[in-house]
Amino acid sequence: MTAFLRNQWYVACTADELGDKPLARRICNQKLVFYRTAAGQACALEDFCPHRGAPLSLGQVEGDLLVCGYHGLRVTCNGDVHSLPNQRVDRFPCVRRYAVVERGGFVWVWPGPAEQADEALLPHLAWADNPDWGYGGGLYHIRCDYRLMIDNLMDLTHETYVHADSIGQLEIEEAPVHTSVRGNEVITERHMADVTAPPFWQMALRENGLDPEARVDRWQICRFTPPSHVMIEVGVALAGRGGYDADHADKVSSIVVDFITPETDTSIWYFWGMARTFRPASAELTEKIREGQGKIFAEDLEMLEQQQQNLLEFPERPLMTVKIDAGGAQSRRVLQNLLAQEGPALEC
Amino acid sequence: MTAFLRNQWYVACTADELGDKPLARRICNQKLVFYRTAAGQACALEDFCPHRGAPLSLGQVEGDLLVCGYHGLRVTCNGDVHSLPNQRVDRFPCVRRYAVVERGGFVWVWPGPAEQADEALLPHLAWADNPDWGYGGGLYHIRCDYRLMIDNLMDLTHETYVHADSIGQLEIEEAPVHTSVRGNEVITERHMADVTAPPFWQMALRENGLDPEARVDRWQICRFTPPSHVMIEVGVALAGRGGYDADHADKVSSIVVDFITPETDTSIWYFWGMARTFRPASAELTEKIREGQGKIFAEDLEMLEQQQQNLLEFPERPLMTVKIDAGGAQSRRVLQNLLAQEGPALEC
Amino acid sequence: MTAFLRNQWYVACTADELGDKPLARRICNQKLVFYRTAAGQACALEDFCPHRGAPLSLGQVEGDLLVCGYHGLRVTCNGDVHSLPNQRVDRFPCVRRYAVVERGGFVWVWPGPAEQADEALLPHLAWADNPDWGYGGGLYHIRCDYRLMIDNLMDLTHETYVHADSIGQLEIEEAPVHTSVRGNEVITERHMADVTAPPFWQMALRENGLDPEARVDRWQICRFTPPSHVMIEVGVALAGRGGYDADHADKVSSIVVDFITPETDTSIWYFWGMARTFRPASAELTEKIREGQGKIFAEDLEMLEQQQQNLLEFPERPLMTVKIDAGGAQSRRVLQNLLAQEGPALEC
Repeated sequence: MTAFLRNQWYVACTADELGDKPLARRICNQKLVFYRTAAGQACALEDFCPHRGAPLSLGQVEGDLLVCGYHGLRVTCNGDVHSLPNQRVDRFPCVRRYAVVERGGFVWVWPGPAEQADEALLPHLAWADNPDWGYGGGLYHIRCDYRLMIDNLMDLTHETYVHADSIGQLEIEEAPVHTSVRGNEVITERHMADVTAPPFWQMALRENGLDPEARVDRWQICRFTPPSHVMIEVGVALAGRGGYDADHADKVSSIVVDFITPETDTSIWYFWGMARTFRPASAELTEKIREGQGKIFAEDLEMLEQQQQNLLEFPERPLMTVKIDAGGAQSRRVLQNLLAQEGPALEC
Repeated sequence: MTAFLRNQWYVACTADELGDKPLARRICNQKLVFYRTAAGQACALEDFCPHRGAPLSLGQVEGDLLVCGYHGLRVTCNGDVHSLPNQRVDRFPCVRRYAVVERGGFVWVWPGPAEQADEALLPHLAWADNPDWGYGGGLYHIRCDYRLMIDNLMDLTHETYVHADSIGQLEIEEAPVHTSVRGNEVITERHMADVTAPPFWQMALRENGLDPEARVDRWQICRFTPPSHVMIEVGVALAGRGGYDADHADKVSSIVVDFITPETDTSIWYFWGMARTFRPASAELTEKIREGQGKIFAEDLEMLEQQQQNLLEFPERPLMTVKIDAGGAQSRRVLQNLLAQEGPALEC
Repeated sequence: MTAFLRNQWYVACTADELGDKPLARRICNQKLVFYRTAAGQACALEDFCPHRGAPLSLGQVEGDLLVCGYHGLRVTCNGDVHSLPNQRVDRFPCVRRYAVVERGGFVWVWPGPAEQADEALLPHLAWADNPDWGYGGGLYHIRCDYRLMIDNLMDLTHETYVHADSIGQLEIEEAPVHTSVRGNEVITERHMADVTAPPFWQMALRENGLDPEARVDRWQICRFTPPSHVMIEVGVALAGRGGYDADHADKVSSIVVDFITPETDTSIWYFWGMARTFRPASAELTEKIREGQGKIFAEDLEMLEQQQQNLLEFPERPLMTVKIDAGGAQSRRVLQNLLAQEGPALEC
């Protein structure tokens, strides 16, 4: 039983990934091909040529059209069959098209019926097209149910163990965690007072002109919104200056950005990144952070994939939910409600 | 539901592949071992030792016998169990044997009951053992239904797209195509008048002492015969000299040879080659053509394998058949009729 | 239908394999994690954290406890959940624990209910902790039913074919073989009088100060005991000096040690080695023998894996049992009886 929402926006790829060659990508169990028209508009179709079933992604772009690489069937961005050289195509079924929007450096796709796509549901990206912010990120393919990644991000206790050498510290698991739900948004937050900064934050303090050895107040505020976006406000302030509410001069903060796109029931495209307000224009700092974050997030891969294998091997075992798991549990509840509203997927 | 004929000859391997070691090869979903007796005669047996189930292909040849590499069971070319050292073998079932003929540089096998094998059904190979012809070829393993390869070869429109850099040219898809059926033979032909020769044919013109830049008349005559042989007469003549019927001095031509052997329902052994009448004795030219053809035919591999994946993913989708597909469609009709006559396979 | 005994001891790993990191190993279709407490005691648990299903094998040891590498759940060697930082764990199910004993350089595990584990059933290892013996060995992972390996070891006729270049010789298959059963022990023996020593034994004769070119009497006495241990007394004596019963000065002998641990229905962990009484303290000789034996035993891998593939492909084919197969056949009968007594596995 597929457990992901279809009438939602997911990140399909970064804007940079989609050049002048078509891109094949499976999303929510559907085989898609993405391409840019000559004018640069991003389009998405089912990756199946109605002529002989060849993958359209092996073809090439010709103006607005995607040309099948086998016998030259041309199809429009809307999925209409335009032509097949010297042949009649009036009986040909059209290709399923998907709604696509490019925004904030990402190509977003709506796996449900294109006519139901609603741009108002796109998440707000504070840092996009804003010179006060710098952003860098990457993409991982992970073989796990997308909800295991939501659990992971909505419970940062795991940093103490999985990321012991970079952002983890014992104080995380000792600090009380508080989870709340506002409509379909789930918020889990944790504040640690008067701790030493772990290595990643020492770097950030240093980059920001603050003393990396200073005692700090640290916070993590994780926000889940459907279908599977998790934005995490993270930061440290010099101890006793107000923590999260401290003056800009006394703190370093950023938003950990996580867009999780189900590929299949047990695999995901994981778009991760970090948006920051300090030294936003420094490409060098962006790259340094990106590299560091990439290493840290890679530490979760094996754990998530092996956890998935265990859950497949022991499907009947109940998992335990304690207080630290409340963020993930509430997020799953939101998803469950929305899935019930959406009902079973209809074949288009 | 298996969809290949069993009472037919298929190419199992080239004569060169079968040296003094046994060769394991799955053909039409059956596990076979091929070997040569000490006298050089090619034999084929099921690759299963009746003693403990070891693969006979890990054994070795001893005179006329194949010796199992596990405990030394000896079996004859007819599948009779000859001996097991110091043990009685009178209760042992015999090994299934397959009819085998070596001809034209290939080892041919009959997957159906050996006693029904009919050498009169072997295809005529004009070039075999004939000094007026030169021949070179190769073998590819491709993960697709053998009929997708027949479709591919019986519709050369795909050259325009898949082989754009070598033998493809826009005029192919513009020239009318004509398909006819004579008994179980299907013929699809296309003639292009007054075109420029694509790179491959420029090379052939040059090798033949003709002007590679000259305008030419070009032809492609594809002949399918069961179970899955496709011979394609291809060539170019200096424009206006009669095309296919031009004088030998004014044209370059050859036969593209394709023997397709199903391995499983969705994989094949694809024996490809080219037979030519110009400079037949030049080993250097043979190798040059073989290399060029190998590169061109490799361009089909990804397309065919991904097309197969698509058909497995969308089994209910009807494929469209237009005029260019008539050759493949008629070939499938011939196969369908023969399959109906053959009836379901009996276990031997 | 699983066909291995559960209420038995199997070798899980060598003592050396289990260092200060947990070790994941599937045994008898069960996912286990092995670890040593800080004090060095070997423990085994199911490799599944009762919190969120993470593999405990990605965690680390803390005193007596195994700490889950995801969120820090601590579990004791008995499988009791000790703690989860700042959370209540009283509702948590315990982790299944397995009985473990370390003996003779191996960690032994009892896949059945731990409370039924009976140390009296551990095999006697004459060479363990005995300065009169030298021992060396290794581990292979092989994709075959464990019973195919028992067949292999209880019928050394295969040496003539599989190990023709090292320990095989034609006289093996010519010598009569005698199989007997004593309770649950199956013994197959073969004595060859007045033969030349094959390469491996020539080396052993040389190492032992005897003439490697001498005519010898050779013996092989294979002993199977449940669940899947095969000890093989092998040796050569100078011809006519009494064979197996010859004076120590006139012979070279050793015990081939084989502990076969099912991983799944069609794969095994194969612990092989050799125990010898000559020059027992020579680490150099131990290594030389280990290397030689490793090469010889590797020759069986492909045969066993392909035999397994054949049996999966032709499940309905009966295998033939002749006199040389009596050792394997009797061992399977012993296993069949014990499996019937053990009854179907209960979920613990």
